[in-house]
Amino acid sequence: MYKLYGMRDSGNCYKVRLLLNHLDLPCENIATDILQGETRTDEFLALNPNGKVPLLICPDGRPLAESNAILTYLAEGTDYLPEDSYEGALVFQWLFFEQYSHERFIATNRFWMHLERSAATHRAQIEANHGPGLAALGVMNDHLAERDFFVGDRYSIADIALYAYTHVADEGGYDLSVFPHVRRWIADVAQQPRHQLMSA
Amino acid sequence: MYKLYGMRDSGNCYKVRLLLNHLDLPCENIATDILQGETRTDEFLALNPNGKVPLLICPDGRPLAESNAILTYLAEGTDYLPEDSYEGALVFQWLFFEQYSHERFIATNRFWMHLERSAATHRAQIEANHGPGLAALGVMNDHLAERDFFVGDRYSIADIALYAYTHVADEGGYDLSVFPHVRRWIADVAQQPRHQLMSA
Repeated sequence: MYKLYGMRDSGNCYKVRLLLNHLDLPCENIATDILQGETRTDEFLALNPNGKVPLLICPDGRPLAESNAILTYLAEGTDYLPEDSYEGALVFQWLFFEQYSHERFIATNRFWMHLERSAATHRAQIEANHGPGLAALGVMNDHLAERDFFVGDRYSIADIALYAYTHVADEGGYDLSVFPHVRRWIADVAQQPRHQLMSA
Repeated sequence: MYKLYGMRDSGNCYKVRLLLNHLDLPCENIATDILQGETRTDEFLALNPNGKVPLLICPDGRPLAESNAILTYLAEGTDYLPEDSYEGALVFQWLFFEQYSHERFIATNRFWMHLERSAATHRAQIEANHGPGLAALGVMNDHLAERDFFVGDRYSIADIALYAYTHVADEGGYDLSVFPHVRRWIADVAQQPRHQLMSA
């Protein structure tokens, strides 16, 4: 069985739980609290020297880090990663967009405002992040104006990765009412078979 | 033939040029200067709405963005991306590590200090980035203490992606002399057949 070191309120960890549920793969969840320093212990750093969750332990004991690498590994050969090499590359394009142009602004502000509740300490960074976060949501909104899902008009790990922090972007101070296509897509993702809530 | 919109001094663009050269794939380079706003024109945004280089145009005219997605696309089925699915996943793990834990601290500081020459304006951010950048180099150094290359003891796109900004990290204020295994690996990467300098 897979083991997943993760934190319930982390979108990066949620992505992996969501895909595991879609694939009906059983997994032991090991609660790992970032706020309590549980990713910085010697024991955890021996498994992931970069000190981050999610961390997947494969049934044979081998570890794999980075949420979007885990999605790619689990999705290979399934309906959640297109076989066509250009469409597959577009999925990767959106996975890298998510980590570089989206998560670091939207998830980071949510972390300070909603999880760590340290907004006062990080006010300047929160303000600096807000514009780039809006820009990322704008790119998504324009893309979704003409398509149901991010790649090939089919739900894929590109959608799963982007959904994780977008559907709770309000917790990072982002008003989604100005992004109607993103809101329509969020509703569509939640209607997928075997969808699971972040809080589940 | 491929076309590549890129900027010579950008490590993200260099990654793609380096892999194209390894694969002996001819490519038309279209110089696109970030500092002159050339990624924010209507013409460019029509090709990449996220407004970033590198941007690859495939021989059939289809565009692909995000440096590490481009590497993945070009490397598929070659010696630069392991066939084994776990080793392939480890390559992705390092590609996401590169964008999330490395590039945003090391490349960003190099951009301000070396390319834009705006260090005075960004002093606080440069200082805030320095620690996480050192941490990323430390993770790399520890990993390379026991291996020749990042995954499977074989040169892959994980090495190409990480080499691009690591070998010029001094231009972002990082002293590599304290990371001897990283320095050994940099020398080994430069010895690979068909290696090409960033300035080429």
